[in-house]
Amino acid sequence: MCDECGCNERTIRVEEPVLKANDDAAIKNKSFLSEKGILCANILGSPGSGKTSLIEGLAGHIPPAAIAVIQGDLESEVDKLRLEGQGITCYQINTHSGCHLNAIMVANAIGDMILSGKKYLFIENVGNLVCPAGIALGQHVDLVVSSTCEGSDKPRKYPLIFMDADAIIISKTDLTDAVGFIEEDYLADLRKINGRAGIFRVSCKDADSFRQVANLLEHEWDHLTGAVH
Amino acid sequence: MCDECGCNERTIRVEEPVLKANDDAAIKNKSFLSEKGILCANILGSPGSGKTSLIEGLAGHIPPAAIAVIQGDLESEVDKLRLEGQGITCYQINTHSGCHLNAIMVANAIGDMILSGKKYLFIENVGNLVCPAGIALGQHVDLVVSSTCEGSDKPRKYPLIFMDADAIIISKTDLTDAVGFIEEDYLADLRKINGRAGIFRVSCKDADSFRQVANLLEHEWDHLTGAVH
Repeated sequence: MCDECGCNERTIRVEEPVLKANDDAAIKNKSFLSEKGILCANILGSPGSGKTSLIEGLAGHIPPAAIAVIQGDLESEVDKLRLEGQGITCYQINTHSGCHLNAIMVANAIGDMILSGKKYLFIENVGNLVCPAGIALGQHVDLVVSSTCEGSDKPRKYPLIFMDADAIIISKTDLTDAVGFIEEDYLADLRKINGRAGIFRVSCKDADSFRQVANLLEHEWDHLTGAVH
Repeated sequence: MCDECGCNERTIRVEEPVLKANDDAAIKNKSFLSEKGILCANILGSPGSGKTSLIEGLAGHIPPAAIAVIQGDLESEVDKLRLEGQGITCYQINTHSGCHLNAIMVANAIGDMILSGKKYLFIENVGNLVCPAGIALGQHVDLVVSSTCEGSDKPRKYPLIFMDADAIIISKTDLTDAVGFIEEDYLADLRKINGRAGIFRVSCKDADSFRQVANLLEHEWDHLTGAVH
C-alpha cells in the first residue's frame, strides 16, 4: 500500500525516473532562460482564481512586448486569445486530461517561441491548487494567485502549493466584504508554513493594484541580469 | 512519449492495474451502500467553490441525522468541524499530497463509520477540477459545484469533470453581477459536452435555493430504494 492513498504502490515507484527527466529538463530550461536574460515566473492557482487577469494587470505596468506567456489549460484557447488581444505573445498548451504542466512541455514550447526582446516569460499553469506543487518547470519564481472568493482557509487546507511560493497574490480584493474573506486568518495560517513569501493584493477594478507585483518582477529581473539602475 | 504530457510513458501503463483495483472497490462500495438503502453522492469542484456550503444548505431541507459525510482535504479538519457543528456525522480523510479520493479510501471510511439510519452519504472530494474526474468511488450520482466567481468559461476549459456530472450546482449566485458571470455562455459550453445534467442555482444568502437539490436527491433515493410516496 502506498502512503499517499492506500492504492497499489507501483505507480509511485516508476514515477521516480519520470520526475528525474522532468527535473533535468527544468534545469536546462532555467539555464537557457537565464542566459537569455528572461525571468520566468510560474503562475499557480485554482481554476478562476485570476491567473490570466494577473498577467493582464501586469501588462499595464510592463510593456506587453516584453512579455511572453505559456498558457496551460486542459482545453480551449480562451486565455491565449485574451492575452493576444493585449499584444502579448502567447503559446497554448492543451493538456487534455493532464493536471499540471511539466518541464518537457515547457522545453517544447520554448523551442517553438520567438523570445528575442522578451524580459519575462510567464507560465500560466493549469488551474489546480494541488498537482502543480513541486513540479519544476525552469522558473525563477513561483507566484500563487489565491482569490478572496475561495475563502480564508486555503493555506490551511492546501499547504503544499503555498509552502514554496515566492509571492502570494490575493486577488479579487474588491469582493473581500461580499464573500466574508478574513485576511487575518488567511495570513496566520500562511505564516505557519511560509514566512518569506511577499503578500500582494490585487483587483481588476484597480489597475494600479498590480504595480507592486510588477515592481517585484522588475527587482527579480535586475537580480537575474545583474542590472543596476 | 505518452499522449498526455510527452513524458516517459511507463507511468501510464502501470496505472491500469491500480485503476482496476479502484474500480473493483468502487463496485463493492456501491453495492454495499445500495443494499443499505443509502444514496451516495460524489461532490466535486474547485477549491472554495462551495462544496461544504452545499452540504450545509442541504441540511436545511434534509434532517442532518439522515446525512453522513466523508470529507476529503489535503490537510485540516476545518470542514468536518463545520459540518459536525450542524449535527452531521462526518469522517475526515486527509490525503496530504493526494489530489483526489479513491474507492479504497472510501471503503476504509465506510468500514469505520456508523451508517445505520442514514439515507445519504455525501463524499466531498478534494477541491480539484481536474483529477477526481472519472475516478469511481461507489457513488450513485456526481454533483459538480461551480461558483460564479470562477468565471463563465469553466465548462469549456475543464470539460472532463463536467462531462459525467448528473447535476451542476452553480453556486454563489448572489455574486453573479459583481463578478460578471454570464450564465448563457456557461450553459452554451456545458450543453455541448453534457446535455442531460440538471442545472441548479444556489446561494448561501438564500437558504431556500438548496431545496431543489434536496428534491433531486430525494428523487434519486426513491429510485434507489424503490420507495413510493
